[in-house]
Amino acid sequence: MHAQLSRCQYKPFLYFCRIQKRRTVNTLEQEFQQILAHKQPDNLYQPIFYTLMQSGKRLRPKLVHLAVEMLGGDADEAQKVAMAFEMLHNFTLIHDDIMDVAPIRRGKDTVYKKWNSNIAILSGDALAIMAFQQLLRLNCDKQVIIDIAKVFSQTSLEICEGQQYDLDFETQQVVTIDEYLNMICKKTAVMFAGCMKSGAILAGADEQNQQYLYNMGINLGIAFQLADDVLDVYASTPAFGKTIGGDIRDNKKTYLYLMALQQANPEQKITLEDLFARPTTDFEQKYKIVRGIYDDLNIKSQTDEQVRKYVNLCLQDLDKIQVAEERKTTIKELILKLIDREK
Amino acid sequence: MHAQLSRCQYKPFLYFCRIQKRRTVNTLEQEFQQILAHKQPDNLYQPIFYTLMQSGKRLRPKLVHLAVEMLGGDADEAQKVAMAFEMLHNFTLIHDDIMDVAPIRRGKDTVYKKWNSNIAILSGDALAIMAFQQLLRLNCDKQVIIDIAKVFSQTSLEICEGQQYDLDFETQQVVTIDEYLNMICKKTAVMFAGCMKSGAILAGADEQNQQYLYNMGINLGIAFQLADDVLDVYASTPAFGKTIGGDIRDNKKTYLYLMALQQANPEQKITLEDLFARPTTDFEQKYKIVRGIYDDLNIKSQTDEQVRKYVNLCLQDLDKIQVAEERKTTIKELILKLIDREK
Repeated sequence: MHAQLSRCQYKPFLYFCRIQKRRTVNTLEQEFQQILAHKQPDNLYQPIFYTLMQSGKRLRPKLVHLAVEMLGGDADEAQKVAMAFEMLHNFTLIHDDIMDVAPIRRGKDTVYKKWNSNIAILSGDALAIMAFQQLLRLNCDKQVIIDIAKVFSQTSLEICEGQQYDLDFETQQVVTIDEYLNMICKKTAVMFAGCMKSGAILAGADEQNQQYLYNMGINLGIAFQLADDVLDVYASTPAFGKTIGGDIRDNKKTYLYLMALQQANPEQKITLEDLFARPTTDFEQKYKIVRGIYDDLNIKSQTDEQVRKYVNLCLQDLDKIQVAEERKTTIKELILKLIDREK
Repeated sequence: MHAQLSRCQYKPFLYFCRIQKRRTVNTLEQEFQQILAHKQPDNLYQPIFYTLMQSGKRLRPKLVHLAVEMLGGDADEAQKVAMAFEMLHNFTLIHDDIMDVAPIRRGKDTVYKKWNSNIAILSGDALAIMAFQQLLRLNCDKQVIIDIAKVFSQTSLEICEGQQYDLDFETQQVVTIDEYLNMICKKTAVMFAGCMKSGAILAGADEQNQQYLYNMGINLGIAFQLADDVLDVYASTPAFGKTIGGDIRDNKKTYLYLMALQQANPEQKITLEDLFARPTTDFEQKYKIVRGIYDDLNIKSQTDEQVRKYVNLCLQDLDKIQVAEERKTTIKELILKLIDREK
């Protein structure tokens, strides 16, 4: 892997993607198949298999691998940590979809829809436990295993907190921008940070470098979520991969909505609050009005600016990491690609 | 604690119970209060606090402590493992109550009933993660922590499997006695076994003694569940603490039901299958008929005999453990008390 990595540095991104595909994406699927082979009962393990085999972006495993590669750690051991985080991520999706009554994900039925809620609860539970088991398979210094397990469990707990805040916001009359940023930090960014810090621990980085990677993950995660909020309103569907205006339809208090509410004139404020206080009936009309207000208030460019701010904070932390600059190329490419998913 | 333990050996059970109360039950609650203090958001952590503060039998923590005390381990470290298993147990209860649509547990509203299903899913998830975190607080040899974490996660996964089999049995036409025993082994007995084996690992027992303790837990757990199946039909309510005939009302395929079905004449078989195939309308009448068939077939005494068989297997394993006989007194007392809850 190290030989591949150093070759990769000469043909940066495209070549890296091929390596990623061979080393991470395919192997991840093979490994998932292996750990699930012959597992019984079917009603517990088939939903797990179904979920893990939908490849998605495999973003979290990539972050683990990129952190480990940048710092010169072992790729095979990194794979176990990558699996753990991907499984943790998928566990949260299975349970979130029950809570959000979401019938479709990645273009397919969600687990609770395809089976039922009880099976979704239980297979989610089992997947979370199996995620943890991957860390216990690590063949490395015992203290490293324990340190990664601590990061992993703390990350998992904060994700639950983030999801609870998100549920609370549905019925909470006033949500501040700070509360929103805290929520997405926990719900989305801590997992990015956990992946990168775990990679750093595995690669034997010192505490300061671990912290830089953790901070990178937090800032990248916030940028990613804010960019997602923008895409929900402004993306051209095929590249985004989700329904345009889904957050508007579901009355989600996104960054765009909260910023607009803060800057709206009294009339716009009443319109927004009124539209977001009741179930959507005429979606086309609602989307047009809400987007119109966002456009009037210049919300998109303000949010884009915030995305750039958090990406810059992420890149500043990358600069501080004490490793040869050329080792930072691929991770930098991924960062820039991530928050620019439309292009 | 060791000084207390050796004094305890001279005044066996009553004195031990006092120690247990002071050392385990009270301290457990204090420790739960401590780890939950100032945790936010409320909707995530209040259900966890609510659940953990209902003391229940605290049976699983007792098994951890008794194993560690018997083998001469550290009681303060044992407390962390005891907390982990008690939290794991309560996580399973929170999620099982959603699946079983059970409104009452320990005489109080269940979490999903008092709050809602989403909060019950999420607070259960958080509790499972916090359970795991207790193991990572252990101050002992790193390999010991990892070995206990492996037992703990394997136990957790098998409990999910057991619960899934239990759900499957609701709609499965034929359930064999072996399938039933396998289900209760996973759903109930592996946690007893996990507690005792983890205690053994913590106390530095060798692999053979670890295995004896594991087997003790399995046999004790099966005996406990079979005794529970008997009590459901034959207990006098106050001592049992549950509604008499609850399993009959809910059409649960218990050991008694499956044994009866196996030995019933054609007429009894049709009566049983018919009564268990539809929701209960006249509970008094149904209970009377089913209990009548069990009595005719002598099912209670056959099941009692099975309970004795599994308790004897448990005690045989206790005999094999290489530790001074007087150290086995308190654990033996608990075993005999556990499966004789009516007296």
